[in-house]
Amino acid sequence: MSDSSDHQNQTSKPWEHAKAGGSEGDPLAARFVESLSYDRRLYKHDIAGSIAHARMLCKVNLITDDDLQQIETGLKEIEAEIEANFDGWPGWKIELEDVHMCIEAALIEKVGDAGRKLHTGRSRNDQVALDLKLWFESAADHVDGLIDALIKAYHTLAKSHGEIVMPSYTHLQRAQPIVLGGECIAWAEAFRRAALRLSLIDDNFEDHPLGSGAIAGSSLPLDRKQITRALKYFGDPTVFGGIPDGDQSSSSIEATASRDIAIDFVYALSMTAMWLSRWAEQWIIYATTEFGFITIDDKYTTGSSMMPQKQNPDMLELIRGRCGNVYGHLMALLTMCKGITIGYNRDLQEDKRHVFAAYDTVCDCLEMATRIVSTVTFNEDRIKQGLDRGYLDATSLAEYLVTRGVPFRTAHQIVGATVRACGEKGFYKLEQLSVEDFNATCDEAMGGAKPQAAGEWVGEDVYEWLGPENVVKRYQTYGNAGLTGFEEQLKAWEERLGEQE
Amino acid sequence: MSDSSDHQNQTSKPWEHAKAGGSEGDPLAARFVESLSYDRRLYKHDIAGSIAHARMLCKVNLITDDDLQQIETGLKEIEAEIEANFDGWPGWKIELEDVHMCIEAALIEKVGDAGRKLHTGRSRNDQVALDLKLWFESAADHVDGLIDALIKAYHTLAKSHGEIVMPSYTHLQRAQPIVLGGECIAWAEAFRRAALRLSLIDDNFEDHPLGSGAIAGSSLPLDRKQITRALKYFGDPTVFGGIPDGDQSSSSIEATASRDIAIDFVYALSMTAMWLSRWAEQWIIYATTEFGFITIDDKYTTGSSMMPQKQNPDMLELIRGRCGNVYGHLMALLTMCKGITIGYNRDLQEDKRHVFAAYDTVCDCLEMATRIVSTVTFNEDRIKQGLDRGYLDATSLAEYLVTRGVPFRTAHQIVGATVRACGEKGFYKLEQLSVEDFNATCDEAMGGAKPQAAGEWVGEDVYEWLGPENVVKRYQTYGNAGLTGFEEQLKAWEERLGEQE
Amino acid sequence: MSDSSDHQNQTSKPWEHAKAGGSEGDPLAARFVESLSYDRRLYKHDIAGSIAHARMLCKVNLITDDDLQQIETGLKEIEAEIEANFDGWPGWKIELEDVHMCIEAALIEKVGDAGRKLHTGRSRNDQVALDLKLWFESAADHVDGLIDALIKAYHTLAKSHGEIVMPSYTHLQRAQPIVLGGECIAWAEAFRRAALRLSLIDDNFEDHPLGSGAIAGSSLPLDRKQITRALKYFGDPTVFGGIPDGDQSSSSIEATASRDIAIDFVYALSMTAMWLSRWAEQWIIYATTEFGFITIDDKYTTGSSMMPQKQNPDMLELIRGRCGNVYGHLMALLTMCKGITIGYNRDLQEDKRHVFAAYDTVCDCLEMATRIVSTVTFNEDRIKQGLDRGYLDATSLAEYLVTRGVPFRTAHQIVGATVRACGEKGFYKLEQLSVEDFNATCDEAMGGAKPQAAGEWVGEDVYEWLGPENVVKRYQTYGNAGLTGFEEQLKAWEERLGEQE
Amino acid sequence: MSDSSDHQNQTSKPWEHAKAGGSEGDPLAARFVESLSYDRRLYKHDIAGSIAHARMLCKVNLITDDDLQQIETGLKEIEAEIEANFDGWPGWKIELEDVHMCIEAALIEKVGDAGRKLHTGRSRNDQVALDLKLWFESAADHVDGLIDALIKAYHTLAKSHGEIVMPSYTHLQRAQPIVLGGECIAWAEAFRRAALRLSLIDDNFEDHPLGSGAIAGSSLPLDRKQITRALKYFGDPTVFGGIPDGDQSSSSIEATASRDIAIDFVYALSMTAMWLSRWAEQWIIYATTEFGFITIDDKYTTGSSMMPQKQNPDMLELIRGRCGNVYGHLMALLTMCKGITIGYNRDLQEDKRHVFAAYDTVCDCLEMATRIVSTVTFNEDRIKQGLDRGYLDATSLAEYLVTRGVPFRTAHQIVGATVRACGEKGFYKLEQLSVEDFNATCDEAMGGAKPQAAGEWVGEDVYEWLGPENVVKRYQTYGNAGLTGFEEQLKAWEERLGEQE
Repeated sequence: MSDSSDHQNQTSKPWEHAKAGGSEGDPLAARFVESLSYDRRLYKHDIAGSIAHARMLCKVNLITDDDLQQIETGLKEIEAEIEANFDGWPGWKIELEDVHMCIEAALIEKVGDAGRKLHTGRSRNDQVALDLKLWFESAADHVDGLIDALIKAYHTLAKSHGEIVMPSYTHLQRAQPIVLGGECIAWAEAFRRAALRLSLIDDNFEDHPLGSGAIAGSSLPLDRKQITRALKYFGDPTVFGGIPDGDQSSSSIEATASRDIAIDFVYALSMTAMWLSRWAEQWIIYATTEFGFITIDDKYTTGSSMMPQKQNPDMLELIRGRCGNVYGHLMALLTMCKGITIGYNRDLQEDKRHVFAAYDTVCDCLEMATRIVSTVTFNEDRIKQGLDRGYLDATSLAEYLVTRGVPFRTAHQIVGATVRACGEKGFYKLEQLSVEDFNATCDEAMGGAKPQAAGEWVGEDVYEWLGPENVVKRYQTYGNAGLTGFEEQLKAWEERLGEQE
Repeated sequence: MSDSSDHQNQTSKPWEHAKAGGSEGDPLAARFVESLSYDRRLYKHDIAGSIAHARMLCKVNLITDDDLQQIETGLKEIEAEIEANFDGWPGWKIELEDVHMCIEAALIEKVGDAGRKLHTGRSRNDQVALDLKLWFESAADHVDGLIDALIKAYHTLAKSHGEIVMPSYTHLQRAQPIVLGGECIAWAEAFRRAALRLSLIDDNFEDHPLGSGAIAGSSLPLDRKQITRALKYFGDPTVFGGIPDGDQSSSSIEATASRDIAIDFVYALSMTAMWLSRWAEQWIIYATTEFGFITIDDKYTTGSSMMPQKQNPDMLELIRGRCGNVYGHLMALLTMCKGITIGYNRDLQEDKRHVFAAYDTVCDCLEMATRIVSTVTFNEDRIKQGLDRGYLDATSLAEYLVTRGVPFRTAHQIVGATVRACGEKGFYKLEQLSVEDFNATCDEAMGGAKPQAAGEWVGEDVYEWLGPENVVKRYQTYGNAGLTGFEEQLKAWEERLGEQE
Repeated sequence: MSDSSDHQNQTSKPWEHAKAGGSEGDPLAARFVESLSYDRRLYKHDIAGSIAHARMLCKVNLITDDDLQQIETGLKEIEAEIEANFDGWPGWKIELEDVHMCIEAALIEKVGDAGRKLHTGRSRNDQVALDLKLWFESAADHVDGLIDALIKAYHTLAKSHGEIVMPSYTHLQRAQPIVLGGECIAWAEAFRRAALRLSLIDDNFEDHPLGSGAIAGSSLPLDRKQITRALKYFGDPTVFGGIPDGDQSSSSIEATASRDIAIDFVYALSMTAMWLSRWAEQWIIYATTEFGFITIDDKYTTGSSMMPQKQNPDMLELIRGRCGNVYGHLMALLTMCKGITIGYNRDLQEDKRHVFAAYDTVCDCLEMATRIVSTVTFNEDRIKQGLDRGYLDATSLAEYLVTRGVPFRTAHQIVGATVRACGEKGFYKLEQLSVEDFNATCDEAMGGAKPQAAGEWVGEDVYEWLGPENVVKRYQTYGNAGLTGFEEQLKAWEERLGEQE
Repeated sequence: MSDSSDHQNQTSKPWEHAKAGGSEGDPLAARFVESLSYDRRLYKHDIAGSIAHARMLCKVNLITDDDLQQIETGLKEIEAEIEANFDGWPGWKIELEDVHMCIEAALIEKVGDAGRKLHTGRSRNDQVALDLKLWFESAADHVDGLIDALIKAYHTLAKSHGEIVMPSYTHLQRAQPIVLGGECIAWAEAFRRAALRLSLIDDNFEDHPLGSGAIAGSSLPLDRKQITRALKYFGDPTVFGGIPDGDQSSSSIEATASRDIAIDFVYALSMTAMWLSRWAEQWIIYATTEFGFITIDDKYTTGSSMMPQKQNPDMLELIRGRCGNVYGHLMALLTMCKGITIGYNRDLQEDKRHVFAAYDTVCDCLEMATRIVSTVTFNEDRIKQGLDRGYLDATSLAEYLVTRGVPFRTAHQIVGATVRACGEKGFYKLEQLSVEDFNATCDEAMGGAKPQAAGEWVGEDVYEWLGPENVVKRYQTYGNAGLTGFEEQLKAWEERLGEQE
């Protein structure tokens, strides 16, 4: 049967020989169905999956040792060719539709009948599901590394400048004093959860789909556990580490009809992008002339084509705006899967377009964020100048009153009155009030009632609770955004990161 | 200080006494900011959280045993009152904005100064974050139970009618024969992952936020581990089971600024809704006159106001359509969080609107799905009549050829030609060809070449590989959608479910 | 046939008499399919549509004058009953599913056989499509009025305080000086387009769907132009003004399967919400301690439950956040319609849930925005203090150089150098440079080259181009954000609004 | 000043000469901010806008005739160079960020100082807004043409095979008989509205933004009406036809901060994609073995890599799935604009990515749809075989009873009973009942009551109302989906299309 290759035109689709008989088809159709323009980046995973499949076929005697030898050698040659010249590899033929068929056709061209045996018991439906899974493993790993780098940048900033006292904001109104380290820890914590979300996806997809065929499995004696083992023995642990021995999906229909792994991944990327957009907005505001808290490194600002004086935080704006791109990819995938029947449908092909684009976008944004955090300057003097505005220590005063036996709600009411009294006196900070002022105001606010425990509302020690510098030292609760909180967390992180290495 | 309550009008907001001084505000403003109309369902979780907080306050001597006693008794009375008359409870006052303030105001009215101490070291920002977390625990548990019930309905169907042979579809075109049990297992598997997704969220949120205050923590000696313990010792394990001893969030800023738990939950619900929409579409098609595979129970169809003969699958259509509602809630939450600064912003209040609505919708849809699956009739005769259409056994024939040494690609090509030959002879199924027909067609397809191993392409045993009934018995791969696959999975599920009980 | 009513249980669905024979159905099913809980607000439009339908039926002799008389009287009584007691009207019966069936059943109960004739040649499919169209007319009109009110609020602000000089921002960095009136005109212009979008929708839906039946039309001699006329002769022009004489939809299938009008409306609301979110964000930033540009009226801020000093712009935050709600409704509708077959499907019933909620949300937000704009204080002194920061006049200087024959790109380059020179001298505004400083800097920047036309780069008149107060007077282009631009627009608006009245 | 070009490195950004002094920047930053990879397709519109701008500058004496001459010649040369070698044009330099700067830099390189004057009074902010508007004009026109072609394909199908009688579906259940022409008219009508939506957008954006500068306008005497005129005198009416004489935007801030035109366009594309997805789903179902209504042309189906017998409607599936892509782009744009401050922000740059991708996708899908409609085969015999299933004439029978004086609701009830009686007798169509059977059944259903007008419920003429062939002839309402409706619409369309030509 050595001549059988004559019957097949290698540039037509291997499974559509019949059609090639006469009509040549509509070029729009070829362009319309192809996914090669975006799925070729799967070549490495496709080849790895094919080798694992071939090893299994050999083990169960569906192909010979010699067939296997030819297939492996051929595929490895192809891999080397592609790596040498990714864009220019002659095997990329749009009329073959996708990466799977391009590689299979190139293999058949190289090794003949052995190549024709590779697809035994396999469909593109389970093949692409495997490729996507393998790609996800490495992609998630890469994102995880980028998030780690960003977290480390926050830590480095916290370590070097974490003690700068600054206002915190709720409703974008000045709230309580914190230290810069407290803010750094907050971002780090949000991104820690983003990374954890990635690793949890992996827990939901421990099984591999190969051997599910087109939809129903196969009547050939395929050993799917053997595929698992073959995947594991591959060189690259970042690609295949995630599949424990013996795991194989338990429904051939579900395995080929599902794109859950793609959507879960893009969702996790969306949440990462969302947090990036919050951070970007925060620092865009910090970088205004009015706030003046930070100076973004020159490398990460750009000028205006019309206004010569501008230094704009374009990178931050793009990070904020690209959050929309990632959400868009998520919505695209969810819409795509809405209301389609089970079993593979061609709609699913579009998944990779979104997964890859969302991944590229988030990777770029994470890298850029890391660079901006690593090079930012916090303008300590400027921050300090404004610190005595906004009564940042009002809550501290209320808590002081609590320590003297005043119920919190009453204390809250009294401090409200005190702040107003301050304003009426033309003062702008609570420290400007004398102890007598304090007590008079409190008396008035409470209609002459006196606190139960202490004879007077406040004593001289009240000033130890006032002023942002005092307040950030007083926070005691676990996870606080003042001095003790940030130092505790930094230590915990260092231990954790130390363990990882 | 027993008279201090005089200074405060209980129907104004406890923290806005000052404003109450004169102006009465704009009624639109009150309506605009309130969340009471949808957050009152948190009352149980709010009270539980408050009691845990109070116990901790007592432990660290910020309130007395007597205060604690009054607070606990008061809150439990309030809980009983609300449960007795949810809608009509007089404590719901829209001008108090939300469930937290209504309950606190009612407590103060009941017990006076002890009530005024409850909010010590606490803000609504960490309070609502805790309430939401506690609610999530019970809500996720409830959804999990509903998914379980749906999976069991599929199993019951598989057990009783799982051996019905039917076509499977890819691209909605007839693909390979399967058994009904295979389809049931596929849906069960998809929903198993949906449930797993829920439990993984929980793994990302093991820590509780209480003690984070408004944003920066507190200068009072709050013991946050003590809160964890207090929450655990509460009666209801479905509410509080998820928080391991000692876990407390590590950034007060992140804990009060994040709505990740809400979005993760609505995402998990979206994926559940997506799978429900796929199943609904599939069965709507099965229920057409043309397919005729299923009859939906009368209780779950409705008639037409104009066309007297109609029995429409309205419930399935609504399940499909409501997928859109859930996606909408997800998009709303993602948009809401895009680009807002860290620290609590009032936008976050809208989260509950979406979380509750998405939860209610998905719960209803899951329940309805379970009832439809439990009462459906699969029309075996009608399915059987059509089984010999569509060459469902073509892949089986190709695999037969593989067992005779023909490379799969070549076999695929030959079978393609055979199917066409069938059509040309006016046959509609492969079995109608004689062994001679088969071999002649194969010869022609291969230009006279012969298979290497066997002398002829097919022998008499080919008929054992043809016909849907034969094919569903031949599948061997793990997870296949034929007889062995479905039986194996059913057994595995029974073991798993047995273990759970 | 007067006894026929005996054969029908009025609380069962009129079109499901058959089912009523025995089984009583599943209560979950009744709850699952009902839309009455949200569509009852259509009662007025439903009754108007029914009367128009009945008049037409009478005109073509399908019902008698006496039938018509009974139907009209009955429906008007029902309308009065509902208006008197909307929530408590006894005709709302959830088992009748929707507003249409509740009203028809109440009519039959009231007038017997005449009522049974009302649905002649009609289906709920075309009935609800008409109701939705009529509702849209009045809803769009209402939103239009609210947008108008908001635009007027901006104008009033522009008129009274429009000459306040302030910075404009691109990239949230100080750009060029403008006047407050320029900003007001910008918001007004954005909302003008939002209103125009609404009116354009109407242009796409001039035809009414009634007479399309369930999907195919009717074999009865219905005169659909007669319905148009009947709708027009109705009292309320805000409800029916939009349908020109003789317009009737041209495909019965499309008319009953489409929800375009609902989606177009929610899209227009989404764009309105988007602009509201941008404005809200802008003013939240203006209201910070750091910017201090505006003070929001006390009625539209709220306090903190923990921090006694806070005045938070909660209303603005909710306006910003609720943009997400509206987007969510849009996404829900788009998802709902994706991939469903043509002809009415029950999924479509969910449309009203989203349309009504989006409408309510945007109406509230528009009203709140109008109140905030109408009561805001722009802090002129505070704005003025910061005006000389950020080199707002740099572009003006470049344009000055252009008037002296310097190519713009060269001028841009020179001014860039000048700004840096300023900084190096410790100056913070361009005016601080002397003419000699200017020319020396320019010379240096250009490597000693001199401008062609004028002998020197700048003369004494340069100071007329510097300083924000000078700059806002110099803008000449149509639509500029300085003094002339804002005054011209204000006048144009006044003329336009004058014409409207 | 001829030497000034020496001071500028042409490969650095023209407006960032200062930075070029030393630091070379971060390559990631260059890649991160560039839009050149996707905005270069605007080159034609950018050049047209620049020439119009230059002509105006000359008219108001800001540049000389000679300058204008050089600029126009230079830009036209550049246009020719790009057209000759789009991808390989050496002027595309990623470090220049975007199409605008690449073209300006190439111009300066070509003509020196005259080129340096082109950007006088202009910013990239108003420049890109104009380019986008001009692009939209031609893009909308192109989509409009593609929709027209699709509508014509439906008409051609309707003309040649429109009389085929077929079932219509509501809830995907057989409803009433229609003709194929009725379905064609429905799709045509839906797409007519989609095209109208496009043209309405144009009505909202009649004004051009150029002359708005960066945000505040310009202090130079730019004549914006002159720009309008210059744009109009340009050769290509498809590009510039949409801007009436004298229209110029009325707020420089709004004009540079808005992306409404982009979002409106992508929304209109989303609605087009939505209808394409509905049609695709419908025809995927029609193409199943079970329905068998249509055969899709071989050129627009593909095979399976595993199952040799398959002919899958992949093109239709991709059309359905790509609806998700377009929705995703819409959501991305809406998210991007949510909550950003007014004035240009760099986020807005991402708009083109989405607008272009959505446009390309919808154009491809429309073209593919036109080809599929133009080549489809409706299998008349197969459709006919099934026509007598599903009691498609039940509504017709009810309407017959109405003509005999039976109230519609009563008639509906009687026919329901008749359908059941048919089933009990083992009949599957109403025609199988004798007149006596009919009357007996009616009597029983109504408890012995008789119809008022006629003595009996039905007479011999009832058979003229039964059977799908009779029914499709009887529809009388305007827009019906039977014979008269489709013929009337086809004629109306022909008149309309005739007028257009």
